[in-house]
Amino acid sequence: MNADKIPDIIIGRLPVYLRALQRMSEKGMKTTSSQELGEHVGISAAQIRKDISQFGEFGKQGTGYSIPFLMDKLREILKVNRMWDVAIVGAGELGHALARYQGFTNRGFRVVMVFDNDPSKIGHKIGEFTIEDTSKMVERIRSAKVKMAMVTVPASVAQAVADKLVQAGVKAILNYAPTSINVPAGVHVQYIDPATHLQRMTYYLD
Amino acid sequence: MNADKIPDIIIGRLPVYLRALQRMSEKGMKTTSSQELGEHVGISAAQIRKDISQFGEFGKQGTGYSIPFLMDKLREILKVNRMWDVAIVGAGELGHALARYQGFTNRGFRVVMVFDNDPSKIGHKIGEFTIEDTSKMVERIRSAKVKMAMVTVPASVAQAVADKLVQAGVKAILNYAPTSINVPAGVHVQYIDPATHLQRMTYYLD
Repeated sequence: MNADKIPDIIIGRLPVYLRALQRMSEKGMKTTSSQELGEHVGISAAQIRKDISQFGEFGKQGTGYSIPFLMDKLREILKVNRMWDVAIVGAGELGHALARYQGFTNRGFRVVMVFDNDPSKIGHKIGEFTIEDTSKMVERIRSAKVKMAMVTVPASVAQAVADKLVQAGVKAILNYAPTSINVPAGVHVQYIDPATHLQRMTYYLD
Repeated sequence: MNADKIPDIIIGRLPVYLRALQRMSEKGMKTTSSQELGEHVGISAAQIRKDISQFGEFGKQGTGYSIPFLMDKLREILKVNRMWDVAIVGAGELGHALARYQGFTNRGFRVVMVFDNDPSKIGHKIGEFTIEDTSKMVERIRSAKVKMAMVTVPASVAQAVADKLVQAGVKAILNYAPTSINVPAGVHVQYIDPATHLQRMTYYLD
Protein backbone atom coordinates (compact mmCIF):
# COMPACT_ATOMS: atom_id res chain seq x y z
CA MET A 1 0.00 0.00 0.00
CA ASN A 2 2.43 2.65 -1.19
CA ALA A 3 2.83 4.93 -4.19
CA ASP A 4 4.91 2.34 -6.04
CA LYS A 5 2.25 -0.31 -5.90
CA ILE A 6 -1.07 1.42 -6.58
CA PRO A 7 -1.45 2.80 -10.12
CA ASP A 8 -1.86 6.54 -10.38
CA ILE A 9 -5.11 6.13 -12.27
CA ILE A 10 -6.68 4.39 -9.28
CA ILE A 11 -5.45 7.05 -6.86
CA GLY A 12 -6.96 9.62 -9.20
CA ARG A 13 -10.40 8.05 -8.86
CA LEU A 14 -10.44 7.93 -5.06
CA PRO A 15 -11.16 11.66 -4.55
CA VAL A 16 -14.06 11.31 -6.97
CA TYR A 17 -15.46 8.43 -4.91
CA LEU A 18 -14.88 10.43 -1.73
CA ARG A 19 -16.74 13.44 -3.09
CA ALA A 20 -19.68 11.29 -4.17
CA LEU A 21 -19.76 9.62 -0.73
CA GLN A 22 -19.64 13.04 0.92
CA ARG A 23 -22.67 14.13 -1.14
CA MET A 24 -24.52 10.94 -0.26
CA SER A 25 -23.67 11.49 3.39
CA GLU A 26 -24.97 15.08 3.23
CA LYS A 27 -28.25 13.65 1.95
CA GLY A 28 -28.43 11.46 5.07
CA MET A 29 -27.45 8.17 3.42
CA LYS A 30 -25.57 5.66 5.59
CA THR A 31 -24.74 2.82 3.19
CA THR A 32 -24.19 2.44 -0.51
CA SER A 33 -23.28 -0.21 -3.07
CA SER A 34 -20.61 -0.18 -5.75
CA GLN A 35 -23.52 -0.13 -8.20
CA GLU A 36 -25.05 2.99 -6.70
CA LEU A 37 -21.71 4.74 -6.23
CA GLY A 38 -20.89 3.86 -9.83
CA GLU A 39 -24.05 5.56 -11.04
CA HIS A 40 -23.05 8.72 -9.18
CA VAL A 41 -19.55 8.89 -10.63
CA GLY A 42 -20.00 7.29 -14.04
CA ILE A 43 -17.61 4.40 -13.35
CA SER A 44 -18.57 0.70 -13.47
CA ALA A 45 -19.40 -1.11 -10.23
CA ALA A 46 -16.74 -3.71 -11.04
CA GLN A 47 -14.08 -1.04 -11.44
CA ILE A 48 -15.05 0.59 -8.14
CA ARG A 49 -14.92 -2.73 -6.29
CA LYS A 50 -11.54 -3.46 -7.84
CA ASP A 51 -10.17 -0.01 -7.00
CA ILE A 52 -11.32 -0.08 -3.39
CA SER A 53 -10.22 -3.68 -2.82
CA GLN A 54 -6.63 -2.59 -3.53
CA PHE A 55 -6.62 -1.14 -0.03
CA GLY A 56 -8.45 -3.85 1.92
CA GLU A 57 -11.89 -5.34 2.39
CA PHE A 58 -14.07 -2.33 3.10
CA GLY A 59 -17.44 -3.62 1.92
CA LYS A 60 -19.62 -6.59 2.76
CA GLN A 61 -21.20 -8.91 0.22
CA GLY A 62 -24.90 -8.09 0.18
CA THR A 63 -24.88 -5.08 2.47
CA GLY A 64 -22.39 -2.95 0.54
CA TYR A 65 -20.31 -0.17 2.01
CA SER A 66 -20.83 1.86 5.16
CA ILE A 67 -20.54 5.44 3.86
CA PRO A 68 -18.87 6.94 6.99
CA PHE A 69 -16.45 4.01 7.22
CA LEU A 70 -15.49 4.14 3.55
CA MET A 71 -15.10 7.93 3.74
CA ASP A 72 -12.76 7.54 6.71
CA LYS A 73 -10.72 4.93 4.88
CA LEU A 74 -10.47 7.01 1.70
CA ARG A 75 -9.47 10.08 3.72
CA GLU A 76 -6.79 8.04 5.42
CA ILE A 77 -5.47 6.63 2.14
CA LEU A 78 -5.47 10.07 0.49
CA LYS A 79 -3.92 11.60 3.64
CA VAL A 80 -6.67 14.18 3.93
CA ASN A 81 -7.51 13.07 7.46
CA ARG A 82 -5.09 15.87 8.34
CA MET A 83 -5.04 19.54 7.33
CA TRP A 84 -2.82 20.67 4.44
CA ASP A 85 -1.72 24.28 4.15
CA VAL A 86 -2.03 25.73 0.66
CA ALA A 87 -0.58 28.91 -0.83
CA ILE A 88 -2.29 30.85 -3.61
CA VAL A 89 -0.12 32.58 -6.18
CA GLY A 90 -1.97 35.22 -8.18
CA ALA A 91 -4.46 37.51 -6.46
CA GLY A 92 -6.59 38.18 -9.52
CA GLU A 93 -10.28 37.41 -9.65
CA LEU A 94 -9.70 33.69 -9.55
CA GLY A 95 -7.20 34.00 -6.69
CA HIS A 96 -9.74 36.05 -4.77
CA ALA A 97 -12.45 33.49 -5.43
CA LEU A 98 -10.20 30.65 -4.24
CA ALA A 99 -9.11 32.53 -1.11
CA ARG A 100 -12.79 32.81 -0.20
CA TYR A 101 -13.85 29.38 -1.48
CA GLN A 102 -16.08 27.56 1.00
CA GLY A 103 -15.55 24.14 -0.54
CA PHE A 104 -12.28 23.28 1.25
CA THR A 105 -14.06 22.80 4.56
CA ASN A 106 -13.74 19.19 5.71
CA ARG A 107 -11.82 18.29 2.57
CA GLY A 108 -8.38 18.55 4.17
CA PHE A 109 -7.18 21.94 2.94
CA ARG A 110 -6.68 25.41 4.33
CA VAL A 111 -5.46 28.43 2.39
CA VAL A 112 -2.72 30.12 4.42
CA MET A 113 -1.07 32.68 2.12
CA VAL A 114 -1.85 34.66 -1.02
CA PHE A 115 0.87 36.18 -3.21
CA ASP A 116 0.92 38.65 -6.06
CA ASN A 117 3.60 40.74 -7.78
CA ASP A 118 1.34 43.74 -8.42
CA PRO A 119 2.29 46.64 -6.09
CA SER A 120 -1.32 47.87 -6.19
CA LYS A 121 -2.46 44.56 -4.69
CA ILE A 122 0.33 43.80 -2.19
CA GLY A 123 -0.74 44.64 1.35
CA HIS A 124 -4.44 44.57 0.49
CA LYS A 125 -6.78 42.15 2.19
CA ILE A 126 -8.80 39.24 0.80
CA GLY A 127 -11.00 38.32 3.70
CA GLU A 128 -8.56 37.39 6.45
CA PHE A 129 -5.51 37.24 4.14
CA THR A 130 -3.10 40.04 3.36
CA ILE A 131 -1.75 39.78 -0.17
CA GLU A 132 2.01 39.29 0.08
CA ASP A 133 4.79 40.17 -2.32
CA THR A 134 5.80 37.35 -4.68
CA SER A 135 9.43 38.43 -4.23
CA LYS A 136 9.23 37.09 -0.66
CA MET A 137 7.36 33.95 -1.66
CA VAL A 138 10.21 31.44 -1.69
CA GLU A 139 11.34 32.37 1.78
CA ARG A 140 7.82 32.59 3.22
CA ILE A 141 6.69 29.25 1.82
CA ARG A 142 9.90 27.51 2.80
CA SER A 143 9.87 28.75 6.39
CA ALA A 144 6.16 27.91 6.80
CA LYS A 145 6.82 24.46 5.24
CA VAL A 146 3.87 24.81 2.87
CA LYS A 147 3.86 21.88 0.44
CA MET A 148 0.90 22.74 -1.80
CA ALA A 149 0.06 25.73 -3.99
CA MET A 150 -2.65 26.87 -6.38
CA VAL A 151 -1.38 28.94 -9.30
CA THR A 152 -3.76 31.50 -10.77
CA VAL A 153 -1.33 33.70 -12.67
CA PRO A 154 -1.35 34.49 -16.40
CA ALA A 155 -0.13 31.66 -18.65
CA SER A 156 2.96 33.68 -19.60
CA VAL A 157 4.39 33.59 -16.07
CA ALA A 158 3.07 30.22 -14.86
CA GLN A 159 6.34 28.38 -15.49
CA ALA A 160 8.42 31.02 -13.67
CA VAL A 161 6.06 30.84 -10.70
CA ALA A 162 6.17 27.03 -10.71
CA ASP A 163 9.99 27.14 -10.71
CA LYS A 164 9.94 29.39 -7.64
CA LEU A 165 7.43 27.15 -5.88
CA VAL A 166 9.61 24.12 -6.51
CA GLN A 167 12.58 26.05 -5.16
CA ALA A 168 10.52 26.84 -2.05
CA GLY A 169 9.87 23.14 -1.44
CA VAL A 170 6.32 22.90 -2.80
CA LYS A 171 5.51 19.33 -3.87
CA ALA A 172 2.02 19.70 -5.33
CA ILE A 173 0.76 22.42 -7.65
CA LEU A 174 -2.79 22.96 -8.81
CA ASN A 175 -2.41 24.98 -12.00
CA TYR A 176 -5.28 27.16 -13.22
CA ALA A 177 -3.20 28.92 -15.85
CA PRO A 178 -4.16 27.68 -19.32
CA THR A 179 -0.70 26.33 -20.05
CA SER A 180 1.38 23.31 -19.14
CA ILE A 181 4.18 23.60 -16.62
CA ASN A 182 7.24 21.42 -16.20
CA VAL A 183 8.34 20.34 -12.76
CA PRO A 184 11.06 17.95 -11.57
CA ALA A 185 10.31 14.36 -10.53
CA GLY A 186 8.72 14.22 -7.12
CA VAL A 187 6.63 17.33 -7.69
CA HIS A 188 2.99 16.79 -8.69
CA VAL A 189 0.88 18.97 -10.95
CA GLN A 190 -2.85 18.95 -11.54
CA TYR A 191 -4.66 21.20 -13.99
CA ILE A 192 -8.03 22.82 -13.57
CA ASP A 193 -9.32 23.69 -16.92
CA PRO A 194 -12.96 24.50 -17.66
CA ALA A 195 -12.61 23.72 -21.39
CA THR A 196 -11.69 20.09 -20.66
CA HIS A 197 -14.76 19.72 -18.45
CA LEU A 198 -17.01 21.30 -21.06
CA GLN A 199 -15.58 18.94 -23.69
CA ARG A 200 -16.64 15.97 -21.57
CA MET A 201 -20.24 17.00 -22.20
CA THR A 202 -20.39 18.17 -25.82
CA TYR A 203 -20.13 14.58 -27.07
CA TYR A 204 -23.66 14.05 -25.76
CA LEU A 205 -25.15 17.23 -27.21
CA ASP A 206 -26.71 17.69 -30.65
CA MET B 1 -20.05 5.35 -32.72
CA ASN B 2 -22.82 6.90 -30.67
CA ALA B 3 -23.50 7.74 -27.04
CA ASP B 4 -25.14 4.36 -26.39
CA LYS B 5 -22.13 2.36 -27.47
CA ILE B 6 -19.07 4.11 -26.04
CA PRO B 7 -18.79 4.03 -22.24
CA ASP B 8 -18.93 7.39 -20.52
CA ILE B 9 -15.60 6.73 -18.83
CA ILE B 10 -13.86 6.55 -22.23
CA ILE B 11 -15.53 9.74 -23.44
CA GLY B 12 -14.34 11.38 -20.24
CA ARG B 13 -10.72 10.58 -21.07
CA LEU B 14 -10.79 11.97 -24.61
CA PRO B 15 -10.63 15.67 -23.58
CA VAL B 16 -7.63 14.80 -21.41
CA TYR B 17 -5.90 13.21 -24.40
CA LEU B 18 -6.85 16.19 -26.55
CA ARG B 19 -5.41 18.66 -24.06
CA ALA B 20 -2.15 16.72 -23.83
CA LEU B 21 -1.93 16.55 -27.63
CA GLN B 22 -2.59 20.29 -27.82
CA ARG B 23 0.30 20.90 -25.41
CA MET B 24 2.59 18.63 -27.42
CA SER B 25 1.55 20.44 -30.57
CA GLU B 26 2.33 23.82 -28.98
CA LYS B 27 5.83 22.50 -28.28
CA GLY B 28 6.21 21.76 -32.00
CA MET B 29 5.77 17.99 -31.79
CA LYS B 30 4.21 16.30 -34.84
CA THR B 31 3.86 12.67 -33.76
CA THR B 32 3.49 10.75 -30.53
CA SER B 33 3.04 7.22 -29.25
CA SER B 34 0.47 5.82 -26.84
CA GLN B 35 3.43 5.31 -24.48
CA GLU B 36 4.44 8.98 -24.59
CA LEU B 37 0.86 10.26 -24.43
CA GLY B 38 0.30 7.92 -21.49
CA GLU B 39 3.20 9.44 -19.60
CA HIS B 40 1.70 12.90 -20.10
CA VAL B 41 -1.74 11.98 -18.81
CA GLY B 42 -0.96 9.21 -16.32
CA ILE B 43 -2.93 6.52 -18.17
CA SER B 44 -1.46 3.29 -19.47
CA ALA B 45 -0.46 3.02 -23.12
CA ALA B 46 -2.68 -0.04 -23.49
CA GLN B 47 -5.70 1.85 -22.16
CA ILE B 48 -5.06 4.76 -24.51
CA ARG B 49 -4.76 2.46 -27.54
CA LYS B 50 -7.97 0.69 -26.51
CA ASP B 51 -9.84 3.97 -25.95
CA ILE B 52 -8.79 5.48 -29.25
CA SER B 53 -9.37 2.29 -31.23
CA GLN B 54 -13.07 2.48 -30.26
CA PHE B 55 -13.38 5.18 -32.90
CA GLY B 56 -11.24 3.75 -35.69
CA GLU B 57 -7.64 3.10 -36.65
CA PHE B 58 -5.93 6.41 -36.02
CA GLY B 59 -2.39 5.25 -35.33
CA LYS B 60 0.20 3.25 -37.21
CA GLN B 61 2.17 0.36 -35.78
CA GLY B 62 5.71 1.60 -35.28
CA THR B 63 5.18 5.24 -36.18
CA GLY B 64 2.45 6.04 -33.65
CA TYR B 65 -0.06 8.85 -33.98
CA SER B 66 0.08 11.99 -36.07
CA ILE B 67 -0.69 14.68 -33.48
CA PRO B 68 -2.65 17.03 -35.80
CA PHE B 69 -4.61 14.11 -37.25
CA LEU B 70 -5.48 12.65 -33.85
CA MET B 71 -6.42 16.12 -32.55
CA ASP B 72 -8.77 16.59 -35.52
CA LYS B 73 -10.36 13.20 -34.91
CA LEU B 74 -10.82 13.80 -31.18
CA ARG B 75 -12.30 17.25 -31.85
CA GLU B 76 -14.71 15.69 -34.31
CA ILE B 77 -15.72 12.91 -31.88
CA LEU B 78 -16.17 15.39 -29.02
CA LYS B 79 -18.02 17.80 -31.36
CA VAL B 80 -15.67 20.66 -30.51
CA ASN B 81 -14.77 21.16 -34.16
CA ARG B 82 -17.60 23.69 -33.93
CA MET B 83 -18.16 26.64 -31.57
CA TRP B 84 -20.44 26.20 -28.53
CA ASP B 85 -22.04 29.20 -26.88
CA VAL B 86 -21.82 29.19 -23.09
CA ALA B 87 -23.68 31.29 -20.52
CA ILE B 88 -22.17 32.19 -17.14
CA VAL B 89 -24.50 32.45 -14.16
CA GLY B 90 -22.98 34.31 -11.23
CA ALA B 91 -20.89 37.42 -11.83
CA GLY B 92 -18.79 37.12 -8.69
CA GLU B 93 -15.02 36.88 -8.75
CA LEU B 94 -15.08 33.46 -10.35
CA GLY B 95 -17.69 34.53 -12.91
CA HIS B 96 -15.52 37.50 -13.80
CA ALA B 97 -12.45 35.29 -14.12
CA LEU B 98 -14.32 32.88 -16.40
CA ALA B 99 -15.75 35.65 -18.57
CA ARG B 100 -12.18 36.79 -19.18
CA TYR B 101 -10.60 33.34 -19.32
CA GLN B 102 -8.23 32.99 -22.28
CA GLY B 103 -8.21 29.19 -22.23
CA PHE B 104 -11.37 28.66 -24.29
CA THR B 105 -9.65 29.78 -27.47
CA ASN B 106 -9.47 26.92 -29.96
CA ARG B 107 -11.13 24.57 -27.49
CA GLY B 108 -14.62 24.95 -28.96
CA PHE B 109 -16.25 27.37 -26.53
CA ARG B 110 -17.29 31.01 -26.46
CA VAL B 111 -18.86 32.81 -23.52
CA VAL B 112 -21.87 34.74 -24.80
CA MET B 113 -23.80 35.94 -21.73
CA VAL B 114 -23.23 36.60 -18.03
CA PHE B 115 -26.07 36.73 -15.51
CA ASP B 116 -26.39 37.84 -11.91
CA ASN B 117 -29.29 38.68 -9.61
CA ASP B 118 -27.45 41.47 -7.76
CA PRO B 119 -28.87 44.88 -8.80
CA SER B 120 -25.49 46.46 -8.09
CA LYS B 121 -23.92 44.23 -10.75
CA ILE B 122 -26.64 44.12 -13.41
CA GLY B 123 -25.81 46.44 -16.30
CA HIS B 124 -22.13 46.57 -15.44
CA LYS B 125 -19.51 45.38 -17.88
CA ILE B 126 -17.08 42.47 -17.67
CA GLY B 127 -14.84 43.10 -20.66
CA GLU B 128 -17.20 42.98 -23.62
CA PHE B 129 -20.12 41.51 -21.65
CA THR B 130 -22.88 43.39 -19.90
CA ILE B 131 -24.08 41.57 -16.80
CA GLU B 132 -27.73 40.68 -17.34
CA ASP B 133 -30.54 40.14 -14.85
CA THR B 134 -31.07 36.51 -13.85
CA SER B 135 -34.81 37.13 -13.95
CA LYS B 136 -34.52 37.37 -17.75
CA MET B 137 -32.20 34.40 -18.02
CA VAL B 138 -34.66 31.70 -19.06
CA GLU B 139 -36.02 33.76 -21.92
CA ARG B 140 -32.60 35.03 -23.05
CA ILE B 141 -30.97 31.60 -23.05
CA ARG B 142 -33.93 29.95 -24.72
CA SER B 143 -34.17 32.51 -27.52
CA ALA B 144 -30.41 32.43 -28.11
CA LYS B 145 -30.52 28.58 -28.07
CA VAL B 146 -27.59 28.39 -25.67
CA LYS B 147 -27.09 24.78 -24.59
CA MET B 148 -24.23 25.10 -22.09
CA ALA B 149 -23.77 27.07 -18.89
CA MET B 150 -21.18 27.55 -16.17
CA VAL B 151 -22.64 28.08 -12.71
CA THR B 152 -20.60 30.16 -10.26
CA VAL B 153 -23.26 31.06 -7.71
CA PRO B 154 -23.24 30.29 -3.96
CA ALA B 155 -24.00 26.67 -3.06
CA SER B 156 -27.32 27.68 -1.50
CA VAL B 157 -28.81 28.79 -4.83
CA ALA B 158 -27.05 26.40 -7.22
CA GLN B 159 -30.02 24.02 -7.48
CA ALA B 160 -32.51 26.84 -8.16
CA VAL B 161 -30.22 28.18 -10.89
CA ALA B 162 -29.80 24.71 -12.39
CA ASP B 163 -33.59 24.27 -12.47
CA LYS B 164 -33.94 27.53 -14.40
CA LEU B 165 -31.19 26.55 -16.81
CA VAL B 166 -32.89 23.23 -17.50
CA GLN B 167 -36.15 25.11 -18.07
CA ALA B 168 -34.31 27.33 -20.55
CA GLY B 169 -33.16 24.31 -22.54
CA VAL B 170 -29.58 24.07 -21.29
CA LYS B 171 -28.25 20.53 -21.70
CA ALA B 172 -24.81 20.78 -20.10
CA ILE B 173 -23.87 22.51 -16.86
CA LEU B 174 -20.40 23.05 -15.47
CA ASN B 175 -20.97 23.57 -11.75
CA TYR B 176 -18.40 25.46 -9.69
CA ALA B 177 -20.63 25.72 -6.63
CA PRO B 178 -19.41 23.35 -3.91
CA THR B 179 -22.63 21.34 -3.88
CA SER B 180 -24.27 18.66 -5.98
CA ILE B 181 -27.16 19.54 -8.25
CA ASN B 182 -29.89 17.29 -9.59
CA VAL B 183 -30.93 17.51 -13.22
CA PRO B 184 -33.31 15.44 -15.32
CA ALA B 185 -32.08 12.69 -17.65
CA GLY B 186 -30.58 14.13 -20.81
CA VAL B 187 -28.94 17.03 -18.99
CA HIS B 188 -25.24 16.66 -18.18
CA VAL B 189 -23.41 18.06 -15.19
CA GLN B 190 -19.69 18.34 -14.53
CA TYR B 191 -18.15 19.66 -11.34
CA ILE B 192 -15.05 21.78 -11.00
CA ASP B 193 -13.79 21.41 -7.53
CA PRO B 194 -10.28 22.35 -6.41
CA ALA B 195 -10.42 20.11 -3.31
CA THR B 196 -10.84 16.99 -5.45
CA HIS B 197 -7.82 17.97 -7.55
CA LEU B 198 -5.73 18.70 -4.47
CA GLN B 199 -6.73 15.31 -3.02
CA ARG B 200 -5.31 13.59 -6.11
CA MET B 201 -1.87 14.80 -5.02
CA THR B 202 -1.78 14.46 -1.21
CA TYR B 203 -1.49 10.68 -1.49
CA TYR B 204 2.03 11.21 -2.82
CA LEU B 205 3.11 13.74 -0.19
CA ASP B 206 4.66 13.05 3.20
